[in-house]
Amino acid sequence: MQNRSFDLQTKKNNKVSNTIKPFLDDNFLLENKTAEILYHEYAAPQPIIDYHNHLPPDQIAADAKFENLTDVWLRGDHYKWRAMRTLGVSEKYITGDANDADKFQKWAETVPFTARNPLFHWTHLELKRYFGMTGLLNEKTGAEVYAQANAMLQTDEYSTRNLLRKMNVETVCTTDDPVDDLKWHQAVKAEGMDIKMLPAFRPDKAILIESEKFPAYIKSLSAVTNESIESFDDLLDALKARMDYFHDNGCRLADHGLEQVYAAAFTEREVNVIFKKRLAGDPITKFEAEQFMSAMLYYLGCWYSEKGWVQQFHLGALRNNSARMMRQLGPDTGFDSIGDWEQAAALSKFLDRLDTEDKLAKTILYNLNPRDNEVMATMIGNFNDGSIRGKMQFGSAWWFLDQKDGMEKQLNALSNMGLLSCFIGMLTDSRSFLSFPRHEYFRRILCNLIGKDVHNGELPNDTAWLGGIVKDVCYQNAKNYFDF
Amino acid sequence: MQNRSFDLQTKKNNKVSNTIKPFLDDNFLLENKTAEILYHEYAAPQPIIDYHNHLPPDQIAADAKFENLTDVWLRGDHYKWRAMRTLGVSEKYITGDANDADKFQKWAETVPFTARNPLFHWTHLELKRYFGMTGLLNEKTGAEVYAQANAMLQTDEYSTRNLLRKMNVETVCTTDDPVDDLKWHQAVKAEGMDIKMLPAFRPDKAILIESEKFPAYIKSLSAVTNESIESFDDLLDALKARMDYFHDNGCRLADHGLEQVYAAAFTEREVNVIFKKRLAGDPITKFEAEQFMSAMLYYLGCWYSEKGWVQQFHLGALRNNSARMMRQLGPDTGFDSIGDWEQAAALSKFLDRLDTEDKLAKTILYNLNPRDNEVMATMIGNFNDGSIRGKMQFGSAWWFLDQKDGMEKQLNALSNMGLLSCFIGMLTDSRSFLSFPRHEYFRRILCNLIGKDVHNGELPNDTAWLGGIVKDVCYQNAKNYFDF
Amino acid sequence: MQNRSFDLQTKKNNKVSNTIKPFLDDNFLLENKTAEILYHEYAAPQPIIDYHNHLPPDQIAADAKFENLTDVWLRGDHYKWRAMRTLGVSEKYITGDANDADKFQKWAETVPFTARNPLFHWTHLELKRYFGMTGLLNEKTGAEVYAQANAMLQTDEYSTRNLLRKMNVETVCTTDDPVDDLKWHQAVKAEGMDIKMLPAFRPDKAILIESEKFPAYIKSLSAVTNESIESFDDLLDALKARMDYFHDNGCRLADHGLEQVYAAAFTEREVNVIFKKRLAGDPITKFEAEQFMSAMLYYLGCWYSEKGWVQQFHLGALRNNSARMMRQLGPDTGFDSIGDWEQAAALSKFLDRLDTEDKLAKTILYNLNPRDNEVMATMIGNFNDGSIRGKMQFGSAWWFLDQKDGMEKQLNALSNMGLLSCFIGMLTDSRSFLSFPRHEYFRRILCNLIGKDVHNGELPNDTAWLGGIVKDVCYQNAKNYFDF
Repeated sequence: MQNRSFDLQTKKNNKVSNTIKPFLDDNFLLENKTAEILYHEYAAPQPIIDYHNHLPPDQIAADAKFENLTDVWLRGDHYKWRAMRTLGVSEKYITGDANDADKFQKWAETVPFTARNPLFHWTHLELKRYFGMTGLLNEKTGAEVYAQANAMLQTDEYSTRNLLRKMNVETVCTTDDPVDDLKWHQAVKAEGMDIKMLPAFRPDKAILIESEKFPAYIKSLSAVTNESIESFDDLLDALKARMDYFHDNGCRLADHGLEQVYAAAFTEREVNVIFKKRLAGDPITKFEAEQFMSAMLYYLGCWYSEKGWVQQFHLGALRNNSARMMRQLGPDTGFDSIGDWEQAAALSKFLDRLDTEDKLAKTILYNLNPRDNEVMATMIGNFNDGSIRGKMQFGSAWWFLDQKDGMEKQLNALSNMGLLSCFIGMLTDSRSFLSFPRHEYFRRILCNLIGKDVHNGELPNDTAWLGGIVKDVCYQNAKNYFDF
Repeated sequence: MQNRSFDLQTKKNNKVSNTIKPFLDDNFLLENKTAEILYHEYAAPQPIIDYHNHLPPDQIAADAKFENLTDVWLRGDHYKWRAMRTLGVSEKYITGDANDADKFQKWAETVPFTARNPLFHWTHLELKRYFGMTGLLNEKTGAEVYAQANAMLQTDEYSTRNLLRKMNVETVCTTDDPVDDLKWHQAVKAEGMDIKMLPAFRPDKAILIESEKFPAYIKSLSAVTNESIESFDDLLDALKARMDYFHDNGCRLADHGLEQVYAAAFTEREVNVIFKKRLAGDPITKFEAEQFMSAMLYYLGCWYSEKGWVQQFHLGALRNNSARMMRQLGPDTGFDSIGDWEQAAALSKFLDRLDTEDKLAKTILYNLNPRDNEVMATMIGNFNDGSIRGKMQFGSAWWFLDQKDGMEKQLNALSNMGLLSCFIGMLTDSRSFLSFPRHEYFRRILCNLIGKDVHNGELPNDTAWLGGIVKDVCYQNAKNYFDF
Repeated sequence: MQNRSFDLQTKKNNKVSNTIKPFLDDNFLLENKTAEILYHEYAAPQPIIDYHNHLPPDQIAADAKFENLTDVWLRGDHYKWRAMRTLGVSEKYITGDANDADKFQKWAETVPFTARNPLFHWTHLELKRYFGMTGLLNEKTGAEVYAQANAMLQTDEYSTRNLLRKMNVETVCTTDDPVDDLKWHQAVKAEGMDIKMLPAFRPDKAILIESEKFPAYIKSLSAVTNESIESFDDLLDALKARMDYFHDNGCRLADHGLEQVYAAAFTEREVNVIFKKRLAGDPITKFEAEQFMSAMLYYLGCWYSEKGWVQQFHLGALRNNSARMMRQLGPDTGFDSIGDWEQAAALSKFLDRLDTEDKLAKTILYNLNPRDNEVMATMIGNFNDGSIRGKMQFGSAWWFLDQKDGMEKQLNALSNMGLLSCFIGMLTDSRSFLSFPRHEYFRRILCNLIGKDVHNGELPNDTAWLGGIVKDVCYQNAKNYFDF
């Protein structure tokens, strides 16, 4: 029965590979010589322009240091929190009242269970790059890592600015609300800090009219502008005033976090009525909300263009899914996920209206659902009109997609349907001062994709040419694109 | 013209690989040494908990044997039927009145045309594992395979239970309608069968109110509970009684097959009116149907939580597309495909409501459209709250996705956006007693992905640790997860 | 700090590959020996049936030659235009009044920036196959390439027919409007041209009732049929007359370019009212438009079946996104992208209605959004009923997807969810006489996928059998499928 006459298989040679590349060595993620050359000679030396993140400006202004490794690494990192919750770790050790050492130990115990999750790479890359630790974090090594890192964190080498300098960071753009006074940005500018720290304008709270906090937000906007806001015109005036203020403080970049872009038809008159209803506490319909949001995006878009800013759209997050945890911990605590709304038609309509009126600013589109990669990669081509190299950008893989698979898919979609060579590349989008090796991660993946193409005969073996593209994507394109 | 001056290519070395791995050998799908070790030493020895399938309980209770290879292998296998129809094989040889030998021969002739389809792998893996046949099935070998297999099928070794034992199956969960009397489950329990056979509760027919068979189904439910069902409350009482009955018979698992999860707002009063209209034969609107289905899912979900059951949702199948063949052959005959409905927002709303009321049972989400992998992989993170390890599960690649590419995508999405280490792994979802090598297939793919990461320097070379994760995913996580 | 005790990594062996395959050599895209054999021995010798393209019939009838390389290669190629616009090249050098030499030079300068975009491969493959140039096109080589190619283009070897013969093209199906007189098709038939040139029926303009050009189009249809068109019946009669005319001129193939397939319920009476309203200039609703389009697709589908034609559906393009450029340049100038509409349910309903009435023609479904691959790959299985081998086809990767990644995804989805062996394969969909190496590109990718499976032990090493499948997909299946 075992050796049947109709058996075609006779070969017994074994094709399996027995060589094992060390984990996280100097050539991490680089699978051939060309990838190594591209990374080490072209990508690695480039400074970092981190044009979108959520770093706290006050901590940079103060050049603060951190209490301990939990303080700098776990507090606020909802990626790690989600992993711990999935493993069954009690909230006490995540956001609760356990002490920092115990919290760290719980995280250390979690790490081995994150195998194949980007957290496993990020964790060890960050331990290596910032603390010189080349081992693995786990239940056995947790205490030692904690003690040694804590000792280092007390030294000046680990102040916020030195952490940025260690990663060769040239520019950071924080994310700021229109009502923000930007005093920390002013402070570091006045002081002449060597790292450029610029604000970015994120007016979500003025747009999301359905939020229960919307009326209160309008009041805070009124307070900061010293003008009453009772009509839609008042609102526009207030935002415009804040944009002027932001511009004067170095802002050249706006950002929007939305489920979708809205492009409903509206008249100013309609929008004014909707706005007043909402302020009065009267109910508005779903469509009215869309009209209002459509209007806001349109007017803001016009002004971004006037001012020469770049507008960013982060699309497709389904946020605050757990009402229970939202009440308990607030937003941005690890209860968000990926949505699946239609994106293409409204996005096109929105961009087209601005384009038709010659008011389309440089634009970066980020999608959270990777199934939309090709929609975004081709959408930008519709409005790249030859006026500015890479005017429309398909933004780097974001949030849940900020991992090898997600980055490769974004880079491949962009390569196949646009020009990789014009891409402005990576940003951390992070709240953490320890997340800047994410740029290294991206650069290695970029160089590896190109290197594989070369070794596979899909690109000519011309390292100088391809290295130039690598340099552009890692640094020079962003440098040229933003008007910092 | 042939050798132009601007030609940069000069190298002529050849990079192509000339070694060929034998088809379906012991290291099938295992591309390196680590993958081999993980599979053979950690994955292969694990028993099988097949926690969701469609095996016929009566055939297990009877320890039935099969007439011939067509009987056990082709009858009821709509995967094979679809392939034959695509190739142009007449229905006569598929579900028609041709004799079993001729039907088998038509299948044998079809097999070579299934190259690159999972059927080609499944076919030869099943011939090898169950019948020890290592050759290829085709028009030439069909008669011999048929004769030899038929002879074996007459022996006790090929009874239903022995087929399961051959694959080291520890537990099977069948799929049962609430009206089922579960007499076969009772019989094997009374008898003390060594393989655990448990029912699972699948109340689709009580939920799909738009089905023309709905009123008749309610009558059968009424008959089995000996209570009249005239109001929504009556319906809930009847289902609850059946859940108690299922629970007493070992059921710890429910399952729903739906296009989407529904989460429309409803009141009990509204739902009662809708239900009565439907029973009376009056038309109900699309929205009313959604309200009814939303209510059913909500109440059932609450009870699953109370009873400590696991709830499963199989989402996204577009069924019975050919009305002509539906009339001719009925459902589940190979005329279903993949739908593309929005999934995220309603699913979030549904789970959130249960979670808020502390009534969210352990849940497994399966999607049929692979474009929804990332929605599912991140959705579970929203409701993993640290209470139970891996409480929320992104289910194994299902139906059309139950193949290498589909499994790898599911495993990668889960790995990147959740914790692979907490995954409860594979199930057959099958009607066939010969489909259990599907677990082996899954395990090889799992081990290969991890092995590739190790050899590529993306995971540390620590086989004991990674082998532990493999064991957990193949067996131990399911063992711990279900309250069998 | 550098060598911590918890460091598990000790190996230092290097796994990186140092061999580099030459760019675009004879084994381009072929990664192993089996792939090479399959391509060179089985795929390459096959003639080409290019069953869907946009070649200009008049140029074939005239056996025209081209002025220069810009004329034959850049004029009309909106893929190249998009790339140039993205890079920041002024419209002057794209569609503007710059001279042809300058336009070519701008393209030459752009090419190095297209690395990883299919344009880079296509460009060099076309230079090699048509002009024997093996170098790289860039700012330095542009002038030389232009001069040499222009000289060749003056020779008879580079007439339209000889360009097709050079690629072993046996049949081309152009894309023609119902009002077209097909005089060029008649001329080449009368002349007995060795290459078969057949028309295809593309009645989009008669279907897209919301287009502002619809009423004018109906008038042109009326003019060509010499019958007034005042009712829906008149319209159907006119189209049927044109179908007869097309049929008499060798047409066996229809094509539809639509965002989605429409399958709204309608009555002839309703549709007649809608049609008359539209002709009268009265507004029609979105739903009325859908009813009209649903009716058109239904009736046309019935007739395609009657005539034994093949119907094609190109679904999912979001067209003419830039109103500004639409006004300036018209359609098909590089301002289209990928849409994200729901496809499955309506498509199923449409096909089912025809199937139920036994009026479902052979059908090819093409999707532009790759996220719909699995919907299409499984949809065809619903209506493959054994009557005709491969009756329902999932069409080759189209437009933006016409590149290695897109083709591999289409081929893999089809393989996993259908039968690759029954696939009718590649078409250019192109307006360019130089795009026929696209077939070679596809064939190499196909052979490489199969070859990799063989070398990886996922397919038996039987080149004759697999070579037979390759031949079928490259040529024989199309030959058998179409009733040319």
